[in-house]
Amino acid sequence: MDVQYRQIDTSKLRSFCELLFCSYGFSRSESEIITDVLLRADLYGISSHGVHRLVRYHDEITSGQVDVHAKTQIVHETEISACIEANKAMGQLAGADAMKLAIQKAKKSGCGMVTVRNSNHYGIAGYYTNMAADEDLLGICMTNTEAICVPTFGSQAMTGTNAIALAFPAEPFTFSFDASTTVVPRGTIEVFKKNENPLPENWALDADGKPCADASIVISNIIAKAGGGIAPLGGLGTLHGGHKGYGLGIIVDLFSAIISGGLTSNHVNRQPGHTGICHYFMAIDYGIFGEKQTIKNNMSKFLQELRDSKKAEGQTRIYTHGEKEAETMIARVNGQIPVNEKTLEEMRVIADKLGMGFAI
Amino acid sequence: MDVQYRQIDTSKLRSFCELLFCSYGFSRSESEIITDVLLRADLYGISSHGVHRLVRYHDEITSGQVDVHAKTQIVHETEISACIEANKAMGQLAGADAMKLAIQKAKKSGCGMVTVRNSNHYGIAGYYTNMAADEDLLGICMTNTEAICVPTFGSQAMTGTNAIALAFPAEPFTFSFDASTTVVPRGTIEVFKKNENPLPENWALDADGKPCADASIVISNIIAKAGGGIAPLGGLGTLHGGHKGYGLGIIVDLFSAIISGGLTSNHVNRQPGHTGICHYFMAIDYGIFGEKQTIKNNMSKFLQELRDSKKAEGQTRIYTHGEKEAETMIARVNGQIPVNEKTLEEMRVIADKLGMGFAI
Repeated sequence: MDVQYRQIDTSKLRSFCELLFCSYGFSRSESEIITDVLLRADLYGISSHGVHRLVRYHDEITSGQVDVHAKTQIVHETEISACIEANKAMGQLAGADAMKLAIQKAKKSGCGMVTVRNSNHYGIAGYYTNMAADEDLLGICMTNTEAICVPTFGSQAMTGTNAIALAFPAEPFTFSFDASTTVVPRGTIEVFKKNENPLPENWALDADGKPCADASIVISNIIAKAGGGIAPLGGLGTLHGGHKGYGLGIIVDLFSAIISGGLTSNHVNRQPGHTGICHYFMAIDYGIFGEKQTIKNNMSKFLQELRDSKKAEGQTRIYTHGEKEAETMIARVNGQIPVNEKTLEEMRVIADKLGMGFAI
Repeated sequence: MDVQYRQIDTSKLRSFCELLFCSYGFSRSESEIITDVLLRADLYGISSHGVHRLVRYHDEITSGQVDVHAKTQIVHETEISACIEANKAMGQLAGADAMKLAIQKAKKSGCGMVTVRNSNHYGIAGYYTNMAADEDLLGICMTNTEAICVPTFGSQAMTGTNAIALAFPAEPFTFSFDASTTVVPRGTIEVFKKNENPLPENWALDADGKPCADASIVISNIIAKAGGGIAPLGGLGTLHGGHKGYGLGIIVDLFSAIISGGLTSNHVNRQPGHTGICHYFMAIDYGIFGEKQTIKNNMSKFLQELRDSKKAEGQTRIYTHGEKEAETMIARVNGQIPVNEKTLEEMRVIADKLGMGFAI
């Protein structure tokens, strides 16, 4: 891939995005939240979920798939739980609100579980779990997406990327796990397509349910909902545990779509102007199990033991989850973020359409 | 493998096991619980966790690793949580007690989370999650084990089999997910060893941290704690998502060992006469999110859609988790269970040692 990157001041990107979302009709504070979620992905080094997505959000907002003026409603609530109807809100706003509510309940009652239906794409799940970890709580977050993943022995995409994220406070880095339950997310297949590389074995099926190494076929079938799709974590079949990834994907739909009364992945994005994406947020005050500082110290010690353990041949470093992201963020937060030239051009086009300046 | 099986009446196996556990000094009701967990594995068709394990439990009980007279203690408790010190209790007893407590809290407060330290092997995790599902609750269960799994880029086993189980009521079968977070459990490597088959790529490392296809080397290194081990779900390296399985394994240690103040997998089974295995149990009354019958119907419908979806080439059936086990149990519960002749011989030897009859 011959991609050119340009270093852009983080503060300039932030100002541009905030202004952009304001011009869609979001309030100042809403625009700040959406921008914060979006830029956090770039700060973590997860460029697939950062400003790269602005063009997608632009389309979703201008087509009415996202309702800029949506008000979310709590439709069921207890001391430790809530079910929220998001009314087609921007996913980042529904998500941040829901995790705030989960955190509030956890602080009061030990735990808070909030399920959200009829929302939209909300960016990186790790943003929300880290909201909980920043408050010294355990955070969990899940979301479904449109179907891209075939069940074990199946050939029709039925579950989504269906990521699971969990964060727990630790020193020197918060443990922050954030992973799709597919063997790879759709973005990885897109990279193979761009590079014209064959897909590894056990990754994908074509529309006839045959193993398929051609990334462009897999992607176009997913877009056309023509059949086939990506394997669950563990790959096709059961030999390498694909039935486990398949089950984890179902669990994500259970927490996000089933208990909220929303749409499961196989029904998401099937109607024009409506995605129906569902999320789940949980915060636990781990002090309900014992003394918090001791528990946190034990977690930090365990993670250090993992990092210090013997390396495989040819390897020099073992990471724990969230470590790379924390290091990347430290380097970028008061500095610069590398942005793909193609993305910058997309941003310029959007700015033009909205009659905004583009001083980047 | 040239294994001979004999069909044994389920009721005879149950009577034998109950008598066996009584003769170690467990009470009648304790023996019934241990036997019920053990036989449930055979009824589900998971023979690796059924009477096949009697010889292992015999060794653990007679060596003092399991304390027959252990009393478990609640060391920390809230309306929705508890931390239990198991004092080397039989894992099945600590497990069933802890899930009962989680269920009781869920019924009263909407959710119950119970972490258990210093226990022992507890059989199949799915037994406990199904206790919750039988009470129309969502059940979650995790346990660590001694270390068998290498971190991504590592070569020293640091996390255990670290299974995650989740059950949710549905028709016609409870959704019952129960999976190790390793690419395969140790038992699968043992089968490859027995059959002298080479291990698939990306499954295991030798003591030097090199990929290893020789199952006997991997097993003997694990037993000797000599280094190397089994890959996480997703395999070695990151290409197929091994870092996700690695993270899920850490999450299991977090819920079972870290928040309970117990031993993480890498410290389990390191001292004579003491395993230190830790568990986690959770029950959620999903009525805290909405109308239960509607939620359950939606789950049943989603699972049916998965089973009904288009099959991959050469496949005729898509399963959902717990379906095979439910079908096997229906066939066996009032009938017979196939037991390996070698296991029957082991049972006869144990019975002789304890001066019991062996009328099987």
